[in-house]
Amino acid sequence: MQKIEHIGIAVKDIEESNKLFAKLLNTEHYKIEAVPSEGVITSFFQVGEVKIELLQATCESSAIHKFIENKGEGVHHIAFAVENVQSELTRLKSEGFEAIHQEGKDGADHKIIAFLHPKSTNRVLTEICSDKNAAK
Amino acid sequence: MQKIEHIGIAVKDIEESNKLFAKLLNTEHYKIEAVPSEGVITSFFQVGEVKIELLQATCESSAIHKFIENKGEGVHHIAFAVENVQSELTRLKSEGFEAIHQEGKDGADHKIIAFLHPKSTNRVLTEICSDKNAAK
Repeated sequence: MQKIEHIGIAVKDIEESNKLFAKLLNTEHYKIEAVPSEGVITSFFQVGEVKIELLQATCESSAIHKFIENKGEGVHHIAFAVENVQSELTRLKSEGFEAIHQEGKDGADHKIIAFLHPKSTNRVLTEICSDKNAAK
Repeated sequence: MQKIEHIGIAVKDIEESNKLFAKLLNTEHYKIEAVPSEGVITSFFQVGEVKIELLQATCESSAIHKFIENKGEGVHHIAFAVENVQSELTRLKSEGFEAIHQEGKDGADHKIIAFLHPKSTNRVLTEICSDKNAAK
């Protein structure tokens, strides 16, 4: 893992939460991006080398909708930047981690992403990601 | 907020979790520190500019024991580095955030720390911290 790329936080109302996190972090969000395939709208704040990604569900089948139903708002996942998602997935599976995605898929913010199942990661939903321009 | 200083993760068995996170992060923890005043033992991993802090309770009155009883293992808090804990607390309270600590207190890793109540921060338990050598 090269660095923490972002921390995903599930929110009910992204407009309200954008205002809240602007006050908390003392900086404005720098972009909003809808990811229809995931049923989410996202916004991003930069804090040092890490992004804070707020996620609001746009439909009831969204994983974020289900997360908030079950657990309420709060930290949803931690994403680590890796050089190559596929080779890192192979390494992690060989170490006994359970992958939710068996290969990299398109995510927000021009990223190739894959998630590990939290039951294999101390209940921390873990994403690995790399830039789309880099190799999968 | 200058950067994310660390992410605190509540675990039941720090020895087992040290092995797990060493595999996940592909790096070993670099120190272990007991904080008797908080009833925790902690270990630290470095990933880019951010630390991962694992926290295991050492007594039933520990906040980490209660957290795991209520919610299970997983992300416990996010800590942001600030230049001055007291002035940042004053700013955050003026913005409507609820402080758990009204002034900085000693924490692990040679830090002065203070927490904000998660009910005012989208259910993200938020710590601010600065180095003990800097001004409170």
